[in-house]
Amino acid sequence: MQVSKKLIASLTTVAILSSSAVAIAQTGPKPEQLIKWRQSAFQVIAWNNGRIKGNVEGNYNKEEVVKAANTIAAIANSGLGSLFAPGSDKGKGWHDTSTKPEAFSDKRFGELAGNFVKEANELAKVANNGDQAAVKAQFGALGKTCKACHDDFKTKD
Amino acid sequence: MQVSKKLIASLTTVAILSSSAVAIAQTGPKPEQLIKWRQSAFQVIAWNNGRIKGNVEGNYNKEEVVKAANTIAAIANSGLGSLFAPGSDKGKGWHDTSTKPEAFSDKRFGELAGNFVKEANELAKVANNGDQAAVKAQFGALGKTCKACHDDFKTKD
Repeated sequence: MQVSKKLIASLTTVAILSSSAVAIAQTGPKPEQLIKWRQSAFQVIAWNNGRIKGNVEGNYNKEEVVKAANTIAAIANSGLGSLFAPGSDKGKGWHDTSTKPEAFSDKRFGELAGNFVKEANELAKVANNGDQAAVKAQFGALGKTCKACHDDFKTKD
Repeated sequence: MQVSKKLIASLTTVAILSSSAVAIAQTGPKPEQLIKWRQSAFQVIAWNNGRIKGNVEGNYNKEEVVKAANTIAAIANSGLGSLFAPGSDKGKGWHDTSTKPEAFSDKRFGELAGNFVKEANELAKVANNGDQAAVKAQFGALGKTCKACHDDFKTKD
């Protein structure tokens, strides 16, 4: 009986913990939704990245560069980390996630993300106040933060 | 001979116009890319829309609301119109476009987009300066501009 009571108590604990976990999972978006949103966010960054590239390498349209840099900065500051919630290390959004599992355990992921935010904010400032050469230099600095993270935490296409 | 020369001249004109059209098409992103980007942009808006909804209907976190409102405003101001370029009325990005063909010919599409930009910018202001009730009211005003456009220019899922 002693063993049996302990077993029942253990099973009850497991059941409560499990239902709590389910409750927590149900309050937030599903991993597939998080993955779809983060893939979308990086697509919007890619769109605006391409626009800035076209401007610094060709005819420069300040208004377009400001819009693009502001959009990248706003997304960088939006709290993308919440889209990499535990449990979203595997799954399919628009396509299978290309985030490596290490991103969810290695604290360097957050540090590299912080570098991206810093340089994106600087680019928005430079886009507003600087000339084509200054924007080109800062755009290069931003690109390095993208590459640093992709090198370690993004699967190759 | 006279007819023949005219024919050759006409064919030459057609050839030049065709190659110009090809050249123009090649300078910009393909319709499929434009559709993918605009679908991504609206997904990022949907993500941030959901965050603001959660905040105005429940526990209010000003910092999160500001981030979300700034992101929606930046995307609204980014120049989304360029993602609805001629030729992108049909095609598949992440999925078949859900933009109705009328959006590419009816000038109301641009007017409704302008209303969206106006209310998104106002929401970003109110998020920074107002309280939960003020944000809730302005969030409602923004939502009406989304619905107005979807009603007329977005296919039903």
